[in-house]
Amino acid sequence: MTSNGTVKVEVGLGDRAYDILIGSGLVGRAGEEIAARLPGIRVAIVTDENVARAHLDPLTASLDKAGISSTAIVLPAGEKTKSFAHLQEVVDGVLAARLERRDAVIALGGGVIGDLTGFASGIVRRGMNFVQIPTSLLAQVDSSVGGKTGINSTHGKNLVGVFHQPRLVLADTDVLDTLPAREFRAGYAEVAKYGLIDRPDFFAWLEKNWQEVFSGGPARTEAIAQSCRAKADVVARDEFETGDRALLNLGHTFGHALEAATAYDGTRLVHGEGVAIGMALAHRFSARMNLASPDDAARVEAHLKAVGLPWRMADIPGELPDAERLLAYIAQDKKVSRGALTFILTRGIGKSFIAKDVPASEVLAFLKENHPG
Amino acid sequence: MTSNGTVKVEVGLGDRAYDILIGSGLVGRAGEEIAARLPGIRVAIVTDENVARAHLDPLTASLDKAGISSTAIVLPAGEKTKSFAHLQEVVDGVLAARLERRDAVIALGGGVIGDLTGFASGIVRRGMNFVQIPTSLLAQVDSSVGGKTGINSTHGKNLVGVFHQPRLVLADTDVLDTLPAREFRAGYAEVAKYGLIDRPDFFAWLEKNWQEVFSGGPARTEAIAQSCRAKADVVARDEFETGDRALLNLGHTFGHALEAATAYDGTRLVHGEGVAIGMALAHRFSARMNLASPDDAARVEAHLKAVGLPWRMADIPGELPDAERLLAYIAQDKKVSRGALTFILTRGIGKSFIAKDVPASEVLAFLKENHPG
Ligand SMILES: NC(=O)c1ccc[n+]([C@@H]2O[C@H](COP(=O)([O-])OP(=O)(O)OC[C@H]3O[C@@H](n4cnc5c(N)ncnc54)[C@H](O)[C@@H]3O)[C@@H](O)[C@H]2O)c1
Ligand SMILES: NC(=O)c1ccc[n+]([C@@H]2O[C@H](COP(=O)([O-])OP(=O)(O)OC[C@H]3O[C@@H](n4cnc5c(N)ncnc54)[C@H](O)[C@@H]3O)[C@@H](O)[C@H]2O)c1
Ligand SMILES: [Zn+2]
Ligand SMILES: [Zn+2]
Repeated sequence: MTSNGTVKVEVGLGDRAYDILIGSGLVGRAGEEIAARLPGIRVAIVTDENVARAHLDPLTASLDKAGISSTAIVLPAGEKTKSFAHLQEVVDGVLAARLERRDAVIALGGGVIGDLTGFASGIVRRGMNFVQIPTSLLAQVDSSVGGKTGINSTHGKNLVGVFHQPRLVLADTDVLDTLPAREFRAGYAEVAKYGLIDRPDFFAWLEKNWQEVFSGGPARTEAIAQSCRAKADVVARDEFETGDRALLNLGHTFGHALEAATAYDGTRLVHGEGVAIGMALAHRFSARMNLASPDDAARVEAHLKAVGLPWRMADIPGELPDAERLLAYIAQDKKVSRGALTFILTRGIGKSFIAKDVPASEVLAFLKENHPG
Repeated sequence: MTSNGTVKVEVGLGDRAYDILIGSGLVGRAGEEIAARLPGIRVAIVTDENVARAHLDPLTASLDKAGISSTAIVLPAGEKTKSFAHLQEVVDGVLAARLERRDAVIALGGGVIGDLTGFASGIVRRGMNFVQIPTSLLAQVDSSVGGKTGINSTHGKNLVGVFHQPRLVLADTDVLDTLPAREFRAGYAEVAKYGLIDRPDFFAWLEKNWQEVFSGGPARTEAIAQSCRAKADVVARDEFETGDRALLNLGHTFGHALEAATAYDGTRLVHGEGVAIGMALAHRFSARMNLASPDDAARVEAHLKAVGLPWRMADIPGELPDAERLLAYIAQDKKVSRGALTFILTRGIGKSFIAKDVPASEVLAFLKENHPG
């Protein structure tokens, strides 16, 4: 903790190491924090319409005060913005502003804006400086950390992109006050995920303190910082996802299949909700495979229920495709290597591992047992 | 040299080191060379209509023989293909073929196909294996080596891309037989460039042996290999162009301005021709600045003239914009850092260096003196 309550998490990536600052009032201090690290630069700010309404003017003012001139590129909100068309729009906008390689592109928004902007900044002039100012809980604890950027393709989500690390991440806990409650809750699923992967004490802490995380204050900052530390550790071990980094996909294989099965319709299921159900299913499936105790699965389900997250397929409004179709969505997922099914399974709370060659027949039987229809 | 006359140049980039093979018959041996390095993969071949006509079937047959299944993506020929629209077409085509991260994308073509395909392979799944089979002289000696990939923007050439190294480069000297003579000559400008940058003995060798380089056989293989070695050395020293790699831009600041001034109209000026004139101008300008002897400039001009390359602005058919406009094109060039003009100048044959803060007034006066209009 620094004097004013800001927490600093360092992402250890050698000559590309950078700081994540977490705390109150960081948008107002963005200008000075950026100027201290990247003196004499100009910037382009990429954001979406929702975020611009509440947070663009304060950011611009803060940059102005530090002598940093900026242009803003405001895009429509939503997952559809992660497209080739908007990628080109951002790239052209940054070039039209005549920014050079050592200038910076700032992402001010949730994971959609962060992923798209990170990709654009990674390809304009083959890599410009990039700063993340994540404004959703999910972006603060997950997408802004680790340098994975990208857009969607008609063939699947996040299939096109680059690894491009930011130079600085500013996670202002105040901006979460304008985030819709449902989005906050969805982001919380990723917070809980870090406990479930390999931090059982953190999961136990969340079981006790989640209400204060939701209401704001020091517990919120603490939960975000713990999450960033957890993700930064994994990223420092495996920057390019050739091994361990796959653990971060806990809950995501089932989750992505459910998102696809609901046609990415955010009124039915948003990403974090899919992850919540996916994590519960991963624990339940692990118990069924005699890898973990059913008590652990029950504990996960109880916590998700307590915070108001969906935890089973039946919690998704509307009809779901049948088990065979859900399996087909799973097999299409990009985490399938050479045709074998890879899952993140668990031996208990905080004991996740990468399971290769999971038999599709077992998954299918499990999906049938748990299908609501 | 290996037994069959193939020359191997190693690009020393640590865990991303790779071989460039140069010689006769390599398209026919592509299957076995790729299978030896990347066993069990599937591939997509990206090529253009001109190259496909002569060389796609032999490549596909060679891959088949080695048990490598392939899909082909055939694009229109020409600089305009280096666009966002065709980038998306290649990305979608590779994804539609359901290739995974460890499969490979092969670029079969000149620099246009190589740059576009390298970029696409660098962003599909955040980086797939990439193999270059360069078919123009320029691509064999320059664009296929070093991992710089990209497309053009309305704001300028090559402004968008990534660094993505190939796993293997196969420079088949036979395929140059179908290359139009003008394209071969243009590529030769880049060969001469390596001598002028820092290999005066190579330049002297070219002055003696250029006719045999043009007619084929061992001198051609030798010139291509020397060029690849020269480029590989620079790239190994400065992969991401933060310093020395800029030397490769000898002749390119003037050259790009002339390409822009002729609206990239290939009937008037192709890239290598612009580079030829640019190199002659860089030497002449260096002499004018009392950095080098005018005799060296004359020697460069004489050699370019001997091989049939243009060497002065007056050699470009049609009218050119005036000197002020040419300077504006130079100032727009991406090698302008913080408003100062950066040029590659020389102290004599093989003694190029990066000159920062070249006064625009001197450049303007020089352009006026040498302007044909
Ligand atoms: N790169 C990675 O490592 C990584 C990791 C996880 C998720 N992701 C990606 O992140 C995306 C999801 O991120 P997300 O949940 O932040 O989605 P999002 O960016 O769409 O934000 C969710 C909604 O909240 C709004 N919003 C954001 N901040 C706000 C604020 N402070 N006030 C008011 N409204 C605000 C947005 O406008 C949007 O409508 C997905 O595309 C996913 O693929 C990437
Ligand atoms: N990446 C780098 O480091 C780098 C370096 C230099 C140049 N470049 C880029 O390379 C491009 C120029 O490359 P280029 O000169 O090869 O252009 P090109 O790819 O357009 O090829 C020139 C022409 O020759 C044809 N062709 C190529 N090989 C042939 C063959 N064997 N037989 C018959 N026809 C053939 C092509 O169809 C095309 O019409 C430019 O876009 C330039 O920016 C990149
Ligand atoms: Zn997630
Ligand atoms: Zn060139």
